Amino acid sequence: MATSFHEFDLIQWIRAQCPNSKANLIGIGDDTAILQPPLNCELLFATDMLMEGTHFTFPSATPERAGRKALAVNLSDIAAMAGRPHSALISLALPKSKGPEFAKAVMQGIIDLANEFQVQLIGGDTNSWDGPLVINVAIIGIAPESKSIKRSGAMPGDWIFVTGELGGSLPAHHLTFTPRINEALILNQTVSLNSMIDLSDGLTSDLQHILRESNVGAILDATTIPISNRLSSDDSNQVRLKRALSDGEDFELLFTLSPEDGKQLLNQNPLSINLTQIGEISSRLTAILQHPDGSQTTLEDSGWKHEL
Amino acid sequence: MATSFHEFDLIQWIRAQCPNSKANLIGIGDDTAILQPPLNCELLFATDMLMEGTHFTFPSATPERAGRKALAVNLSDIAAMAGRPHSALISLALPKSKGPEFAKAVMQGIIDLANEFQVQLIGGDTNSWDGPLVINVAIIGIAPESKSIKRSGAMPGDWIFVTGELGGSLPAHHLTFTPRINEALILNQTVSLNSMIDLSDGLTSDLQHILRESNVGAILDATTIPISNRLSSDDSNQVRLKRALSDGEDFELLFTLSPEDGKQLLNQNPLSINLTQIGEISSRLTAILQHPDGSQTTLEDSGWKHEL
Repeated sequence: MATSFHEFDLIQWIRAQCPNSKANLIGIGDDTAILQPPLNCELLFATDMLMEGTHFTFPSATPERAGRKALAVNLSDIAAMAGRPHSALISLALPKSKGPEFAKAVMQGIIDLANEFQVQLIGGDTNSWDGPLVINVAIIGIAPESKSIKRSGAMPGDWIFVTGELGGSLPAHHLTFTPRINEALILNQTVSLNSMIDLSDGLTSDLQHILRESNVGAILDATTIPISNRLSSDDSNQVRLKRALSDGEDFELLFTLSPEDGKQLLNQNPLSINLTQIGEISSRLTAILQHPDGSQTTLEDSGWKHEL
Repeated sequence: MATSFHEFDLIQWIRAQCPNSKANLIGIGDDTAILQPPLNCELLFATDMLMEGTHFTFPSATPERAGRKALAVNLSDIAAMAGRPHSALISLALPKSKGPEFAKAVMQGIIDLANEFQVQLIGGDTNSWDGPLVINVAIIGIAPESKSIKRSGAMPGDWIFVTGELGGSLPAHHLTFTPRINEALILNQTVSLNSMIDLSDGLTSDLQHILRESNVGAILDATTIPISNRLSSDDSNQVRLKRALSDGEDFELLFTLSPEDGKQLLNQNPLSINLTQIGEISSRLTAILQHPDGSQTTLEDSGWKHEL
């Protein structure tokens, strides 16, 4: 007969994998984790909840990849602020039918990515139920020298950049993407970033967040949008462009900066991934897409939104 | 035709209810919230996930009370450390079938309790799906003068106290309880607390956490356990005692302190709720229950655990 395996056994297993290494942390094993923050820093907080059937499905995702994604999307939020991740709290609703090996596999995916980005797992909440897998991560980051980058700093005349390539994140990229933590830190050291966001809902939709919070508009150049080769070459250029503009979960960085700083990045890209200028911030409060024939269309916000 | 209501509409509604009032917070509306922590403080972090069917059921709970409970259990974790709550991040998986009024009602329960305890809602993640309601709260607290109370400080000879009365938290108390934030702050100012925990899994189970982390044992006096009148008077005294020892979700405080400080509390209770001495910490590594006839039994850890 199998010995029963309870939440405290899983917590014990997690503790064994996660030695307390950060000096300013008192750590796991109490009602709350305790952090003695470094002086003169900004602390960053974010949370994301991932649900089986919505953000991942089995068996196209493995439990490891579902766990990995739950931490990765939170790391992407910290990257969007040009922050350094510090620690995370993990909440799980585990399907009872799947047993302890499944629970460990989900946690293994989280632990491996946490180790890769030196994130300390400092606590959480483990539950089981008859429902599907739900994973919530709450993450704590630190902005080096308090230089976090907000959505609200875009200025008319700013150049608009994206990292990497866009579109076609389903079926695999959304589970395996690299959160742009290191890229954001390097960019923030190299140039003066005015605004930044990570692309989770889709370029058009996430651009609108920057425009709204900064009270500005934008003109994008359709010919410059970096279309991912994850998108099928069977599709027309028009379909591929549309998907690069609207597909969600690319988890690349969208940022704006002065033309001088933009030229510096184009002259010498400090990253090992592509950087592309895709347009300019304008003072007119609309988002415009300029086509090769010179015509212009308004960018419709067609990104993903949960209807309630 | 009903206008469709999306996650961003709900976020807009939440923002309108939650003005940014804390000076050290840059706030809602970015990829992460930003906090400039006060100098020389300890920061406290906890998270709890509540699932429909496990932690609450409809219609015996209302959506407001489900939301309220999700924040209240997190406040109870901050209370267990004698911390002051600061801010919280809310993640929701909302059942699509229930519509926007249900979503607002869940948030209203959270917002009302947040206002009562001056907790700022600084961010979150709103999702909808075909599954049941899941609410995750991640909470940030501050330990005044860095005097947080851990589970690990109990010492042989310490007196063991509980606040309030125990048992019978179902069907209503677990939805309506007052998190013992203010009581913990007053106790920590009045006497020197050696260890503390909140009673979520049941007295016997939660006491074991203190004993394990402190490497000590305990002797409880069965006649002193404060049995709640929420427990039916139809039950025998023995059944009522058993339930006071093992029922979960009382969310009272269990703490230990020196006999001198314990006498001070018995002479002059600084709280407006009952304080009861229920036993003593011993150096033998077992938890013992002493009965009126002088006999002793080992306290079995029969508290609630999620089987995986």
